[in-house]
Amino acid sequence: MALIITLTTDFGLADSYVAAMKGVILGINPEASLIDISHSIQPRNILQAAFLLSTVHEFFPQGTIHLAVVDPGVGTERRAVILRTPSADFIAPDNGVLSCIIQQHSTGRGASSPGQRELAPGLEAVALTRDKFWRTPVSPTFHGRDIMAPVAAHLSLGRPLTDFGETATSLSVLPMPRPFQSSDGALVGQVLHIDNFGNLVTDIRADDLPRTDRHLIIEVGGKAISGLSDTYGKGEGLLALIGSSGYLEVAVRDGSASASLHVDVGDRVQIRLKPMDSG
Amino acid sequence: MALIITLTTDFGLADSYVAAMKGVILGINPEASLIDISHSIQPRNILQAAFLLSTVHEFFPQGTIHLAVVDPGVGTERRAVILRTPSADFIAPDNGVLSCIIQQHSTGRGASSPGQRELAPGLEAVALTRDKFWRTPVSPTFHGRDIMAPVAAHLSLGRPLTDFGETATSLSVLPMPRPFQSSDGALVGQVLHIDNFGNLVTDIRADDLPRTDRHLIIEVGGKAISGLSDTYGKGEGLLALIGSSGYLEVAVRDGSASASLHVDVGDRVQIRLKPMDSG
Amino acid sequence: MALIITLTTDFGLADSYVAAMKGVILGINPEASLIDISHSIQPRNILQAAFLLSTVHEFFPQGTIHLAVVDPGVGTERRAVILRTPSADFIAPDNGVLSCIIQQHSTGRGASSPGQRELAPGLEAVALTRDKFWRTPVSPTFHGRDIMAPVAAHLSLGRPLTDFGETATSLSVLPMPRPFQSSDGALVGQVLHIDNFGNLVTDIRADDLPRTDRHLIIEVGGKAISGLSDTYGKGEGLLALIGSSGYLEVAVRDGSASASLHVDVGDRVQIRLKPMDSG
Repeated sequence: MALIITLTTDFGLADSYVAAMKGVILGINPEASLIDISHSIQPRNILQAAFLLSTVHEFFPQGTIHLAVVDPGVGTERRAVILRTPSADFIAPDNGVLSCIIQQHSTGRGASSPGQRELAPGLEAVALTRDKFWRTPVSPTFHGRDIMAPVAAHLSLGRPLTDFGETATSLSVLPMPRPFQSSDGALVGQVLHIDNFGNLVTDIRADDLPRTDRHLIIEVGGKAISGLSDTYGKGEGLLALIGSSGYLEVAVRDGSASASLHVDVGDRVQIRLKPMDSG
Repeated sequence: MALIITLTTDFGLADSYVAAMKGVILGINPEASLIDISHSIQPRNILQAAFLLSTVHEFFPQGTIHLAVVDPGVGTERRAVILRTPSADFIAPDNGVLSCIIQQHSTGRGASSPGQRELAPGLEAVALTRDKFWRTPVSPTFHGRDIMAPVAAHLSLGRPLTDFGETATSLSVLPMPRPFQSSDGALVGQVLHIDNFGNLVTDIRADDLPRTDRHLIIEVGGKAISGLSDTYGKGEGLLALIGSSGYLEVAVRDGSASASLHVDVGDRVQIRLKPMDSG
Repeated sequence: MALIITLTTDFGLADSYVAAMKGVILGINPEASLIDISHSIQPRNILQAAFLLSTVHEFFPQGTIHLAVVDPGVGTERRAVILRTPSADFIAPDNGVLSCIIQQHSTGRGASSPGQRELAPGLEAVALTRDKFWRTPVSPTFHGRDIMAPVAAHLSLGRPLTDFGETATSLSVLPMPRPFQSSDGALVGQVLHIDNFGNLVTDIRADDLPRTDRHLIIEVGGKAISGLSDTYGKGEGLLALIGSSGYLEVAVRDGSASASLHVDVGDRVQIRLKPMDSG
C-alpha cells in the first residue's frame, strides 16, 4: 500500500489551493504522507512541471503516488489520468505533464513526437471516468481538489487502477527539447531550467556527450568553458559539470551563472571537441 | 481525537518562527499531522487571513484544528481563544482573524457589524486563560509559539475545551466587505483577493447574484464582461466565473487578470443585468 | 528513537532538491516526520544558516535530528559530520554551519576564534567516512541527497553514531559577530538578521545588556530609542525589545524597521546608559 503522495502544482504557496487538496486527501486517507515537490511552477507551464517531475520521482520509494496539477484546461475536454510505471503512480491532467515520465520509459529516447503516444510495455494508464471516488459537487475550475486529490487518496488505500476509469492506451506527450548535431559537428542543446543558485541546467544528458578522451568545449552566452569539472567548488569562475539529475549544467563558482552570463531558459548551449593541435 | 493541525500565519517561510511552533506541537503530540495553509499572509493583515481561512477549512476532515496566528497585538490585552464549530476547532488571537468563520455560522449573513459578536447556537469558545498548558516562560512577543501552539497540541490529544480557560460568549468580528445594491440597481462588490494566477476573487458569492435567465454584465477595471463562463479554459480573453471557493472571479484565459486590467485588492466590481433590447 | 528530522537548506522551494532529499529519507524510514525549518537561506550563506538553526533547535523535542545543507564546498575536501549534543543530533557539512550550536555548548561564550574548535564535554561528533549508509552512486554535487539524507534516515532508526564514521574531536567554527565595549563605554553590536516583519534582530542578547536600573538608549540608523518595550503592540513608532529568540530587536509598531531606517544586515547598533541628569 502506497503511503506517500507528492504534490506538484503551479498554485504558489500564498493561496489556500494546495492546502485544500491536502485536506481532501487526509479526509480519505489520514495516514498519507504528503510531500511537496514544488508549487512554484510558472502558471500554466506544463513543460516545466514535466521536467521537474522527471528529475525527482526516482528518489522516492517504490509505489509513491505523484500528483501533478498544472491544468490550464481544467473543465474542458482534456482527461485526467493515472499512469502506472513499474516504480510509481502519477495522477495528472492528460495535457503533457507526464511527457518526460512517458519518454523515460520509452525505447529510442531521441524520437519525441508531439500528440498522443502509445504507452510502452510496462506502463498502464486509466482515464478518470468513474465519478464514484470524486468529491461532489465537482468545481469546473478545480479538478485537482475535487477529482485528482480524492483519487490519489483512494489509490493510496490500495484500490486497483481499474476502479477509477477506463483503460487508456495512449497519453498526450509534448515535444521536449532535445539536443541535436549541427552541420559543423557541434552538439547543440538549450537551457531547460535555471535553479535557485543560478545554475543553467541544459537538456544535454551525460550519455548525449561525445565519448572521447579529448576535452570538451562548452559554449554558452558568448563564453567558452574548457572541460568538465567534478563539482561546484573545484572550478575557477565559470564551469560546466554533470549535475545531480544527470544533466549538463553551467555554473559559476560562488555565484550565479544566469546573472553572470545573462542567459535565460531556451538559450543555446553548444558542445565541441577541443581541437587536437590546441592540446 | 483530532490529529490534523493546520497553520496560517504572516511569518513567511524564511525565518524559523513557523518551525518553532511545529517543534513545540510535536513535542507534545508527536502524532499530530501538521499542514501549512499559508504563511504568506501580508504582515498584520487580519482580514486577509480571515478570508483565506474561510475558503479552506471545509475541505479538512471533521475535528481538524486550525491554528491562525496573525497577531499584531501580541502581548497586549487582546485575548487568545479557541472557537469550536460543529466541524472544526480554531485557535487564534481574538482580533478578527475568525470573523469569517463566525459569520459563516451566523444567520443573516449580510448583517456584519464591527466589534464583539455574540456566538450563534452551535458555536462554543474559551479564552486561553489557564497557563497550565503553556510553554514557560511565555515570550511577550510570540504567543503563537508559547501559548497557542501548545494549546493546539494538547487539544489534539483530546482534552476538553474547558481545560484551557473561561468560556467566552462573544468574540471580535471585523467588518468584512459585502456587496450592496447601488441606487441604479447594480450589485456592487469589490476585489477581495488576487490569487497566484492573477485571478480577481471578489466578495460576491454565487447566491448574491440576481436570479434571472438574462445575461449578466460584469464591469471591472473599465471593461465589461458579458455572461459567466464555466471554466478558465473555455472563455475568450477576459472572463468571469464562479471560482472553486464559491466567489465570483474575473480571469484572463492563459494570462493574469490583475496585470491586464491593472486592478488591485479593494477595487470595485459591478454586476448589471444585460438590457432586454440588446438580446 | 528519534523520529523528527528537520531540514534547513539554501535550495529554495522552486526546484526539486528538497523533495529529492525527503524522498530518500522516507525510502529508508517511512515513519520519519519531516519538518522544514527554512529553505530560503541565501545561496551559500553559511552564517545565516548557523544563526537560524541556533534560534530554533531548542523548540524541538529531545532527540530531534537537524539536517542542515548549505554546502558550497560539496565534493571538495570538507567533511560531512554528525554532531550530537545532549538534546539533538545535527548533520551538516563541517564548514561552519554548526558554529552557533558548538558555541552555545562552549563555556566562555565571548571567545570566538575561527577555524577548528575542540568539542566541549557533552558533545560528540563523527565524520561521515563510512559509505555503507550512502546512496550510490554519490553525485559529487549533491551530498545532501546522497550522503547526509540517508545518514539522517538511518540515524533516526536508532543506529549508533559510530556506525557512520570516525570520531571527530574538533569541528569548524566560523567567527560569529559578537557585541563589544567601545572606548567610550557603549555596547556595540550589529544587525544579524532581518525577519519577515522587517524587525532588526541584533547579536546582542538579553544578558549582554548592562545590569542597571537606568534606562538604556538604543542607537541605530541615526535614531535613538529610549528604553525597552515589552512587546510590538505597546510602543509608539520605533521601539526596541528582547525578541522571542532572546536577542535585542528593533521594530516599528505596525511597520517595518528595516524599511523605515534603511538599515541592513551588518549595520551597527549601539547601547548606552541614559545620562543621569536627563532623568
